[in-house]
Amino acid sequence: MSLIVGDQPLRIACVGGGQLGRMMNLEAPRLNIEMTFLDSLGLNSPAAQTTARVIEGSLQDAAKIQEIARNADVVTVEIEHVNVEALAELEASGCNVQPSARVLGIIRDKFLQKQHFVNHDIVVPPFRETPSIAAVKSAAVELGLPLMLKSRRGGYDGKGNAVLKENTQEAIEEALKQLGITNIDASAALDLYAEGWIEFKCEIAVMVVRSSRAGDPQVSFVTTKSYPAVNAIQQDSICRVVLVPARNISAQVRQKAEILAQKAIDSLGAGASGVFGVEMFVTNSDDVLLNEVAPRPHNTGHYTQDACVCNQFENHLRAICGLPLGSTEMTVPAAAMVNVLGASSMEETLASSNAAMEMAGAAVHWYGKAACRSGRKMGHINVIGDSQSQVDIALEKLLALERIPMELLPVPLLTKEPALVGVIMGSHSDLPTMKDAIQVLKEFKVPYEVDIVSAHRTPDKLMQYSRSAARRGLQVIIAGAGGAAHLPGMVASMTALPVVGVPVKTSTLSGVDSLYSIVQMPRGIPVATVAIGNAMNAGLLAVRMLAASRPALLQHMEKYQKEMKEKVNETSTKLVEMGSDAFLEQMDNKNQSVNV
Amino acid sequence: MSLIVGDQPLRIACVGGGQLGRMMNLEAPRLNIEMTFLDSLGLNSPAAQTTARVIEGSLQDAAKIQEIARNADVVTVEIEHVNVEALAELEASGCNVQPSARVLGIIRDKFLQKQHFVNHDIVVPPFRETPSIAAVKSAAVELGLPLMLKSRRGGYDGKGNAVLKENTQEAIEEALKQLGITNIDASAALDLYAEGWIEFKCEIAVMVVRSSRAGDPQVSFVTTKSYPAVNAIQQDSICRVVLVPARNISAQVRQKAEILAQKAIDSLGAGASGVFGVEMFVTNSDDVLLNEVAPRPHNTGHYTQDACVCNQFENHLRAICGLPLGSTEMTVPAAAMVNVLGASSMEETLASSNAAMEMAGAAVHWYGKAACRSGRKMGHINVIGDSQSQVDIALEKLLALERIPMELLPVPLLTKEPALVGVIMGSHSDLPTMKDAIQVLKEFKVPYEVDIVSAHRTPDKLMQYSRSAARRGLQVIIAGAGGAAHLPGMVASMTALPVVGVPVKTSTLSGVDSLYSIVQMPRGIPVATVAIGNAMNAGLLAVRMLAASRPALLQHMEKYQKEMKEKVNETSTKLVEMGSDAFLEQMDNKNQSVNV
Repeated sequence: MSLIVGDQPLRIACVGGGQLGRMMNLEAPRLNIEMTFLDSLGLNSPAAQTTARVIEGSLQDAAKIQEIARNADVVTVEIEHVNVEALAELEASGCNVQPSARVLGIIRDKFLQKQHFVNHDIVVPPFRETPSIAAVKSAAVELGLPLMLKSRRGGYDGKGNAVLKENTQEAIEEALKQLGITNIDASAALDLYAEGWIEFKCEIAVMVVRSSRAGDPQVSFVTTKSYPAVNAIQQDSICRVVLVPARNISAQVRQKAEILAQKAIDSLGAGASGVFGVEMFVTNSDDVLLNEVAPRPHNTGHYTQDACVCNQFENHLRAICGLPLGSTEMTVPAAAMVNVLGASSMEETLASSNAAMEMAGAAVHWYGKAACRSGRKMGHINVIGDSQSQVDIALEKLLALERIPMELLPVPLLTKEPALVGVIMGSHSDLPTMKDAIQVLKEFKVPYEVDIVSAHRTPDKLMQYSRSAARRGLQVIIAGAGGAAHLPGMVASMTALPVVGVPVKTSTLSGVDSLYSIVQMPRGIPVATVAIGNAMNAGLLAVRMLAASRPALLQHMEKYQKEMKEKVNETSTKLVEMGSDAFLEQMDNKNQSVNV
Repeated sequence: MSLIVGDQPLRIACVGGGQLGRMMNLEAPRLNIEMTFLDSLGLNSPAAQTTARVIEGSLQDAAKIQEIARNADVVTVEIEHVNVEALAELEASGCNVQPSARVLGIIRDKFLQKQHFVNHDIVVPPFRETPSIAAVKSAAVELGLPLMLKSRRGGYDGKGNAVLKENTQEAIEEALKQLGITNIDASAALDLYAEGWIEFKCEIAVMVVRSSRAGDPQVSFVTTKSYPAVNAIQQDSICRVVLVPARNISAQVRQKAEILAQKAIDSLGAGASGVFGVEMFVTNSDDVLLNEVAPRPHNTGHYTQDACVCNQFENHLRAICGLPLGSTEMTVPAAAMVNVLGASSMEETLASSNAAMEMAGAAVHWYGKAACRSGRKMGHINVIGDSQSQVDIALEKLLALERIPMELLPVPLLTKEPALVGVIMGSHSDLPTMKDAIQVLKEFKVPYEVDIVSAHRTPDKLMQYSRSAARRGLQVIIAGAGGAAHLPGMVASMTALPVVGVPVKTSTLSGVDSLYSIVQMPRGIPVATVAIGNAMNAGLLAVRMLAASRPALLQHMEKYQKEMKEKVNETSTKLVEMGSDAFLEQMDNKNQSVNV
């Protein structure tokens, strides 16, 4: 299927016209795709603000589903709680349903979903089928307490979950009531299952996009791709914040999660097409367990609208239409998303969005819901930045306005700019030399940190400092030392960052000892050495290193060099004008007055 | 005006529903803005694929303009060729028209526009009012030949322009015919003006956004901002390609253009609100002249959709509604736009878009026009990348598919990855030393270039190499020299990039002369000096500098250091196992065999 067939747009029918359908439709026109929606709110649905092609009707109504599918090239969903049987019938009559009714049928029922993944060697928390109160009781014995009781179908945003803390008839009845089950007859069939309690370090999520043409040998493009792993931060089981890339886990764990997510979606086989939200737990021992999967664009992937080359909504359309998948790479180093929930008044609800309109890296995505109810998802705000700290400064304000406590975050926000350059020295007696480097960093507004790290007196600190430097965000280390002067070389041996060495002048050998110690490093471990005692040049060298990939800083350095030239030119003009005798006399006077 | 007033969306009426209106409307819903359009194509207009609120009618029809304005909070335009008098009447009756009828009236008439700018000290090409054939003749005498004859109103995409090459009655009549004027009666009034011929190096453009609240002392945000200057590449007077940031001009000229563009829009005064496209010429002496202004989103600003924090369409909406302006900064280092023009067949027309669907950094923006005519703007493709060369590799394919000759570009495309590290040396005799640096760069897959640059024998080349290094994309320079060894320091004095100096070993002083010459630089000009003869470390230092901001390269360096450690550990294990006597014996044997 190519992008545009003749003059006619490609027609997609979407079951559901909420915010996810709406956001798909904001991407559709530029790909020459025309969408039609079915939604119970009809012309009051979020999608209806983006098109007139919205039919009012229940997502369970087979006749209505048939109606929107009639002229469609592809039928898709924006929610899994739909009449899957009606979609299966459409498929049987030759209609192109993506993802397929079979896949939707597996995912829609959380118990079947978990069973599927276990059968495909994907680790999930322990779980049991609990069709009766008796089964709940034995699950509580087998899996222990507390026990999560979950509705097999229809749950979302925490609805359909209850925690069982005691294995008693009363506690079970109370939990069932929470799940909306009032018929507690011992013989009544329960549409529930139970999950063992998992202690986890954080919840993460990965969006996976899989083409409807996966498995077709004629396809030249990659047919399954994942977006980067994110922290999915929940409050009362509703997604409130997403941080990208995920924090508090290593790059290895992030990669493990991305591979697991792709494996899970690929295991669903033919018909597993479109975008999938894959939610996972990371345990304290860095194991990654699959929590659950959604067969559609997902709240944890909204950040892709402003932070990735091709966002989840466009990629969903591409995938279900068999078009080449778009790049899932980030265009920025850091991003975050905050959900805007309905508050007690419209004014309070709008506070975060209106604040975001004045923030440089923030984008407001309002859903246009007909009514604002407390706790309802009214929109979201994406934040992008050149660094985590840039994102976090905006995030701090938005979290406060959205009444989200900081304690929910996996790690504290970085609300001050992290140091890019570390200035260290063997002893405080080196500070009068090293202060010139610090002065340069101040002048160029480069964030820095200063510390005393002695190779010989604090070898443990030396190791800890060097090994953690890159992880903490440092990009250059300036190290000053005199005499045996081992510090710069030892630091260089324990980091992959560039190290600038400043040979401090000594009384015995005038710093030649320091210079040789620092510059004559063995093959494999370089130290960028500057002149004896010239910490100013070390600062300038660090700025030049950073400036190479920062156009504004490069311009600043060019300006600095120009000013240096002009200063010398001024002096030379003065010398020529005054003549060398008068100039020399003035120099002598100045030196005297300095000496007084 | 805040983002969302109560539950009601903000209502904007837009005169014109072409692709510009359509692209505004794709941004509107997420800001809770509801747009209504007037377009002569009605439901067949591009905007109609994004909303049902399109009224069919001429943009000159006062009654229709009144009709769409009836319930609007703000009235705007997506084209300047509209019934400005009708908009003035709306204003008089209290309607909020942005930009104002007065501003539209000035810009719509290119002669009035030029007069306005000249009166506000903005340099434009020389021009004359030519209401008669006699006036054309004297303009040709005063401004010289060739002379541009232009329609004062209604011209776009080269329509309404004719070139007069001879100052004869016949040539003038021929030019008038081209402009659609058949009544060549000497007394007939011509709605034309004439412009002197300008020799220019390139055409550039800057998008400016100005808030309707500019000048209001209560406003806390910046009320005029510009996007970066771009190359606007025309073919047959139709914009075909845009390159961002503009190439073939210096950063200073880019800045000059951005300041000029803002000054021009600010000079329009109250009612100059929304986004403005400002087209300019850069002469061979780097003067910047204003060509013309469009009071709306512009073809040369389409790249902002994929390359900037807040795109021109969103910023137009923000500006006319009095909301804070969004950031005009780029999120990526390089971008380009290619217009998709109707070709001889639909298949040919679609070729570039379908190819773009498979390119990692490309985004397709189709306009959904009802019919595909040859030469008609059917859509555009934005390309983003981490570097100019990444963009150019995609661009090369797209230009071929869009039948755009390479010669139109101001500079050749960079279709191979540009060098990041320059390795230079004073003499070819230094190459045996410097080859170790080159070997490291190869191993880490860092693109590099090698050259001989002698401070003393080729001083001009030294200057040219150093001054152009950053512009050519180099991020580090490695310079090797022996003896007096001036090369590294001299290069460092003429570039803002970091320079790594390698002291080459000399026969007379064993390289101590080289070391002192290179390392003992004066304050202000640093050289990162490595050990005597240790070019390997210079290569590693360059890699570390690049790696600080490149996570993949940093990991590679960490792996390299780990392997180094393992190698030493292996030898140490062997030494312990063999005992030092046997190990020494084996070393002696090896040395002997090497000596043989």
